[in-house]
Amino acid sequence: MARPSGSDAGVTGPRVRAAAERLFARHGYAAVSMRQIAAEVGIGAGALYHYTPDKQTLLRDMMRDHLVKLTTAWAQTDPGGDAVTRLDAFARFHIRFHLDRPDAVFIAYMELRSLEPDAFAEIEALRKTYEAVPEALLRAGSATGVMQVADVKLAGMALIAMLTGVNTWYRDGGRLDRSAVEDVYARMALGMVGVQTVNA
Amino acid sequence: MARPSGSDAGVTGPRVRAAAERLFARHGYAAVSMRQIAAEVGIGAGALYHYTPDKQTLLRDMMRDHLVKLTTAWAQTDPGGDAVTRLDAFARFHIRFHLDRPDAVFIAYMELRSLEPDAFAEIEALRKTYEAVPEALLRAGSATGVMQVADVKLAGMALIAMLTGVNTWYRDGGRLDRSAVEDVYARMALGMVGVQTVNA
Repeated sequence: MARPSGSDAGVTGPRVRAAAERLFARHGYAAVSMRQIAAEVGIGAGALYHYTPDKQTLLRDMMRDHLVKLTTAWAQTDPGGDAVTRLDAFARFHIRFHLDRPDAVFIAYMELRSLEPDAFAEIEALRKTYEAVPEALLRAGSATGVMQVADVKLAGMALIAMLTGVNTWYRDGGRLDRSAVEDVYARMALGMVGVQTVNA
Repeated sequence: MARPSGSDAGVTGPRVRAAAERLFARHGYAAVSMRQIAAEVGIGAGALYHYTPDKQTLLRDMMRDHLVKLTTAWAQTDPGGDAVTRLDAFARFHIRFHLDRPDAVFIAYMELRSLEPDAFAEIEALRKTYEAVPEALLRAGSATGVMQVADVKLAGMALIAMLTGVNTWYRDGGRLDRSAVEDVYARMALGMVGVQTVNA
């Protein structure tokens, strides 16, 4: 079979990724077959192999893309300046980025179990790169004495878990909109490290 | 086939649950068959049906048990008294309880997607019962002015996510033991609601 032309690959490749992401999030990686992914895209099972060599590569690529985009997006959002301003911006950024990608987030946490050792090592390294972001902010805030942090590593993990947790309960159209949720969480994030904001 | 005797049911029933829990956590609910569960227990596929009518019942039972035990265990641990003491105790309790049951915790979060509507409604109600625990503590602390909580519901969810997050990175034998981790998290939990502990 001929390889798809450049334009086919450019359109269908992302559709393959999107279909795999939906199916993995819905059923779990192990329960989804390449045949199901092909059917979801509306191509033949044979044609699917033009876009990816196997299911493991699809999973690894989607987790890599998610984490690379996450770290890159923060680099573009980071306002710089003092640690309190940056931590406030980080909390808001993390919530927004994750709420926009519920399936990718779910898979990034849940399917670490499904990565083969090489892929696991790569994804873990990318995850640690992102985890280093709040750690660096907290270290900077501790150094100037504006933040009280007993353990920078644990506080960074606590912060990420707290903020990612919004994905488990937030629904658009609920009691609070995204911006109100960001406000409350940014304040809690600062409180966690001893920064009490005004208008309590 | 005769039903297993009382003593067989008493021994094998829990082994069926434990095997299903391990397999669901490792591969995901949808990827695991009743046949695999039977093989893991070391009984025939037909015999498995003496212990559970189907896979959905196994999942629902294990999630119900987890959440009922969680809420009951807190009721037995709750020291009562002032809100700060209780929140400190709650943070430590939540971490300990969850670290002791990584598979059950993983399934309780991940496999909500796999519950049929009736089961989902039951499990969601049990989850809300537990979520009401930190909410009540935070409400009490707010009422006396010792805690600064902008939104009790969000703070409760943030607290649970932050504490449950320990499961994603903690390993026995690592840099900090459980008790040190509890100390740091209990302090962050209090800071999150504006209570600054001594010895910062």
